[in-house]
Amino acid sequence: MDRPVITFLSDFGADGAAAICRGVMLGIARDAQLIDISHAVRKFAVRDGAYLLWTALPWMPVGVHVAVVDPGVGTERLPIAIHAARGDVLIGPDNGLLVPAAERLGGITQARAIRNPDLLLPGGSATFHGRDVFAPAAAHVAIGAGFDTVGPVLDPAELVRVPFPEARVEAGRLETAVLYVDSFGNLRLAGTPDDLARAVGRLAAGEPLRLTFSDGGTSRAETATWETTFGGVAPGTALVYRDSSGNIAFADNQGNAAARLGARNDTPVTIERAVPAGRPGDRPSLAPRSS
Amino acid sequence: MDRPVITFLSDFGADGAAAICRGVMLGIARDAQLIDISHAVRKFAVRDGAYLLWTALPWMPVGVHVAVVDPGVGTERLPIAIHAARGDVLIGPDNGLLVPAAERLGGITQARAIRNPDLLLPGGSATFHGRDVFAPAAAHVAIGAGFDTVGPVLDPAELVRVPFPEARVEAGRLETAVLYVDSFGNLRLAGTPDDLARAVGRLAAGEPLRLTFSDGGTSRAETATWETTFGGVAPGTALVYRDSSGNIAFADNQGNAAARLGARNDTPVTIERAVPAGRPGDRPSLAPRSS
Amino acid sequence: MDRPVITFLSDFGADGAAAICRGVMLGIARDAQLIDISHAVRKFAVRDGAYLLWTALPWMPVGVHVAVVDPGVGTERLPIAIHAARGDVLIGPDNGLLVPAAERLGGITQARAIRNPDLLLPGGSATFHGRDVFAPAAAHVAIGAGFDTVGPVLDPAELVRVPFPEARVEAGRLETAVLYVDSFGNLRLAGTPDDLARAVGRLAAGEPLRLTFSDGGTSRAETATWETTFGGVAPGTALVYRDSSGNIAFADNQGNAAARLGARNDTPVTIERAVPAGRPGDRPSLAPRSS
Repeated sequence: MDRPVITFLSDFGADGAAAICRGVMLGIARDAQLIDISHAVRKFAVRDGAYLLWTALPWMPVGVHVAVVDPGVGTERLPIAIHAARGDVLIGPDNGLLVPAAERLGGITQARAIRNPDLLLPGGSATFHGRDVFAPAAAHVAIGAGFDTVGPVLDPAELVRVPFPEARVEAGRLETAVLYVDSFGNLRLAGTPDDLARAVGRLAAGEPLRLTFSDGGTSRAETATWETTFGGVAPGTALVYRDSSGNIAFADNQGNAAARLGARNDTPVTIERAVPAGRPGDRPSLAPRSS
Repeated sequence: MDRPVITFLSDFGADGAAAICRGVMLGIARDAQLIDISHAVRKFAVRDGAYLLWTALPWMPVGVHVAVVDPGVGTERLPIAIHAARGDVLIGPDNGLLVPAAERLGGITQARAIRNPDLLLPGGSATFHGRDVFAPAAAHVAIGAGFDTVGPVLDPAELVRVPFPEARVEAGRLETAVLYVDSFGNLRLAGTPDDLARAVGRLAAGEPLRLTFSDGGTSRAETATWETTFGGVAPGTALVYRDSSGNIAFADNQGNAAARLGARNDTPVTIERAVPAGRPGDRPSLAPRSS
Repeated sequence: MDRPVITFLSDFGADGAAAICRGVMLGIARDAQLIDISHAVRKFAVRDGAYLLWTALPWMPVGVHVAVVDPGVGTERLPIAIHAARGDVLIGPDNGLLVPAAERLGGITQARAIRNPDLLLPGGSATFHGRDVFAPAAAHVAIGAGFDTVGPVLDPAELVRVPFPEARVEAGRLETAVLYVDSFGNLRLAGTPDDLARAVGRLAAGEPLRLTFSDGGTSRAETATWETTFGGVAPGTALVYRDSSGNIAFADNQGNAAARLGARNDTPVTIERAVPAGRPGDRPSLAPRSS
């Protein structure tokens, strides 16, 4: 039989807290295949954690996924377990961290509060639920504790949500925003290539776009071409592309666009064609690149 | 049979030295469950490494624990193995790194110098004992090399110690110091809630404290309440609490207290009640919070 | 039978891309022993990645080694697999990343383009070949896909090379350069102790050297002794030594030489004796240190 898979994400950083949770999990689930997703989530940034889980969990084997970005540790927020349609169980605080990923794994089939004391460490603390609640509960579920033993059923509609920014299709332009800044400084944006196509017409590689980044009272315009890959432009040159999660994104090839622009989460971005265009939709979808 | 557990801590950072040790260990102990504790220990900071082991090892499965923060590599300092009462073996340099954790695992039952050439890599170097001495010795012990084959017995009392700062109970105040600054910027302090209670009386959540941080010639006063969890105060507000290792700690809820105060290891801290109080001990231990 | 070993290096940083690749690999090779070498390679720094593989792979168990530092993702550069004489398979982009390590594993026995669609993720992307090409191909090879099924044979002589700087022995001096700056700030230099001995004569511990670091128009002279280990000099003092990969290196004991000198990759360094010396080769190779 396959070894049970447990994935683990937190904002614990590099100095030992994540390892303590790993120790607790592997003490219970001795043979688990434990996959660290990231422990470098920006401190307390629940949405960044939710975004990373949303991008990563579809690529993980079916298993138990524990996530701890938990500024409300020790308050009334519930520790929860979510069963997703793909067969996974997600474990963490009820603060919005888990829901987007669960929806991407086929949707929430059931949610429960973690209440069964047999799944927790005895003693416990009010400051480190990663160690005392989430890690042991995840490990026990990974080795076979039934999902129905976790605790009382919760109404999925009542779970806390942390909404991601959304793209809005307007006449001739897409109103979007920065969803996440990745470690390369690439700006992952709200919306998909289809959204963008509905706003400005179908794009072929090499077609120029005009982006306006707003921040407080100021705004900054950028020109970038639509590309299918980074190598479509010279190093240091900006591009707009379909990112590996299926969203649109803005990057400087081999550069750090976020640092250059000072862009960050939720910076509003408007995307339109850079040149007067015919009616959206006029263009052939696979036009050869002008070069 | 369970897979052998090896945990691993170092100050090697992220660029390959820790991986080389992992490779050596897994080449010998092919089926080991290898748990990285941290490789982000401040370079050469033996005490930080000792503190992190002290906090982490009690939560690890019984196993072999190898730790390398070793400014004296290649000098006369001995490579050592310590057998702890819980059943663990700790492996690393004799510079104080291992002793506090061994004491927390039930105490040192035996210490030995690592001398058996069968446990080392052939060849070896004078600059990378992590790879050539500690990793292979740990892996060989993990797969069954007897502790008594490691090398000659050492007198535990002769092992190098790196003392942690200690708290001192004075009339109406606790004299303590920063033991460790964690990745959140929380200040882990010497002493326990019991020490603090002996100094200022038993505290209920919400009761105000006055802390004085000294640094060189200057000192800085802070007011903070005693809390059972971060959520007891608003974000950005300071609190004093029992940390997850059982010590007292000072934090800004969802902030970085160390950065704000410029506090670091060994910064002296005095804690007393912020308001004139009755005799210590007068207060009910579970008084409702004033709110 | 032993669990298959997969090692993994990238410049993906800490925020999830490496984990996605780990998830893909462990979804295919459920029982793999996965060893992360580093994901902190400087972004797009192919040579740094090649250097780290060159230092690390000899210490890894025989297995599959996947490496992704890939500024040309999505361009014409080929995804390749290299079979090395030791029995390993290296997988990554054909940009020079893999060749030095393969040569250190006994040399390239065969190279192939990765073309077999059964080894790739269906769908795929033009921006994340780590996930879509390299990780699944590595995992399939790890669990038994024959090397000859990977894709068409390539001429090893045609593989892209990223040359490392080389040392040049001159009369009374070694002309070398910084090959890599490690996480301690130690400067790993081109050339070996034998090269240095051919230039300035055999060195005994404690003998003084004069190093000239050039950078643009300026140059800076340093005096440092040849040592067999860091502890040969006081903390903060510079030394030249044989590093753990067998090259010469320059370090400040318990300090950060790269930060102090502003040295970086390819900074030219000249090494000569600090004091008028007899004919090179005159000196006894194990002379007692002057002290």
